[in-house]
Order: sequence, then C-alpha cells, then structure tokens
Amino acid sequence: MSADDVAAVTAVNLALYEAFETADVEAMSAVWDDVEPDDVVCVHPGWPALRGRRQVLRSWSAVMATTDYVQFVLSDVHVSIGGDTAVVSCTENVLTSVADMNGGAVVATNVFRRRPGGWRLQLHHGSPVLGELETS
Amino acid sequence: MSADDVAAVTAVNLALYEAFETADVEAMSAVWDDVEPDDVVCVHPGWPALRGRRQVLRSWSAVMATTDYVQFVLSDVHVSIGGDTAVVSCTENVLTSVADMNGGAVVATNVFRRRPGGWRLQLHHGSPVLGELETS
Repeated sequence: MSADDVAAVTAVNLALYEAFETADVEAMSAVWDDVEPDDVVCVHPGWPALRGRRQVLRSWSAVMATTDYVQFVLSDVHVSIGGDTAVVSCTENVLTSVADMNGGAVVATNVFRRRPGGWRLQLHHGSPVLGELETS
Repeated sequence: MSADDVAAVTAVNLALYEAFETADVEAMSAVWDDVEPDDVVCVHPGWPALRGRRQVLRSWSAVMATTDYVQFVLSDVHVSIGGDTAVVSCTENVLTSVADMNGGAVVATNVFRRRPGGWRLQLHHGSPVLGELETS
C-alpha cells in the first residue's frame, strides 16, 4: 500500500473525530459513504449496530447534540489497505463532559472504501475498554 | 458482489464461531489470515485491541481454555464485499457457562480478505450491547 494512500486514509480517519469534536453535521455527513448507503454501519460504544446511512447520520446528530464537549487523542493507529478498502484500528482516548466517558478509552475499528471523490467511511465500531487487562 | 462470494464469506464467518464453540485451536488458526500476520487485529468484548496473528491466536487459546461451554446464534448478519475485502457485521446471541455473558448480545464486525486459499479473517471486533436502547 502506498504512503499516499495511508496518509489520505489517516486524514479521513481524523476528520471523523474532528467532525464529532466540532459537532459539525455537514462534515460528519461528508465523512460517511454515500455510494452504498445501505452498507453503512455504526456501533457506538455499548450500543447495538445501526445500519444505513440515514439512520447512522441521525444517531450522530443526536449524539453530538447531547455532548457539550468532547476531545479525542488517538493512539495505536494502525492502517491496513488492500485494494480499495482500508481498515483502521485505533484507540480513542476521550476527554468529555459526559461523566461516564471522561478519561476513558474506546477501541475503534473504521473501514473506509475508496470512492471517486476519496476515501469514505463505511463502518465505525467503537467499544469501551472495560477495566484493566494484562494483554502482553 | 456475487452470490458465491457472499456464501463463501458467510461460511467462513460461521467457521469462526464453530471453532470457538468446539474449542478447536487448529480450526481457529485456519480461520485467521496468515498472509499479512501483522495486520491481524482482534478485540474481545471489553478488551483493548490485540494485534498480530500470534498474539491473537494466543488470546483465543486462553479464552477457549477457560470457557466450559459457549454457543452462538447469529442474527442480523450483513455482508458487504468490495474487491477482495468482505465486511460482515452481525449480532452474536450468546449461551454460555460464563455467567456475565450468558443470554447476552455481542455486536461483531468481522473483516475478511480474499486469499489464494479462500477468505481469511483479518479483524474481529466484538463489543457488548449494554442495556436496552431505542434505536429506531
């Protein structure tokens, strides 16, 4: 996979979190794929899966409207590209006014498809890291 | 995407859960990709991400060794194929001897890559569905 592709995917991955941080509904809409809208999937931490571009964007509008403040510091960002699909996994370190989530970590999987206009997000899966585990 | 591809991906997706149900380490090993071992990622429910084929398989051996009984009924299985990458999202309805998980639901994202020998699992992300949410 080319360094250009990795840079482009990394930028769109960041754009997802910037859209959330700024509660920018149009930027959020631009991040998500609209070529295959029925294949769009989003799992917010602890939620069941939401399917379809319309339902996913509606959920983001609700989440952003009820979040006063949120900031993400991403770590462990790993990009894997095969053909026109990119799989990003990363850890979202969260600072927020939502008490339950503040200072917490969310593990995220983000799948992007290469479209004529650039990479678009097809699937976001976030899940809370519960407790401390020794994994190495 | 062809019906044959969807059927093949659906079968390998099921093989992941059958390997877990039967605690079959060799079957589990055969499900996961070995072409790009460093890109293998697994998130067990509530865990941080594990990276690399070796570490992921080691975690499965530990999980399977400490699970007396587990059975999965999959629902909401959705397959999206683009080129040589398949993204499956599904709900795992879990019956198990592990008290915390019994009767629970896990949302899963499984990403497969098409390899010379067939579709192989590159990423599994499972997350607990916490409480009941009105999502429609």
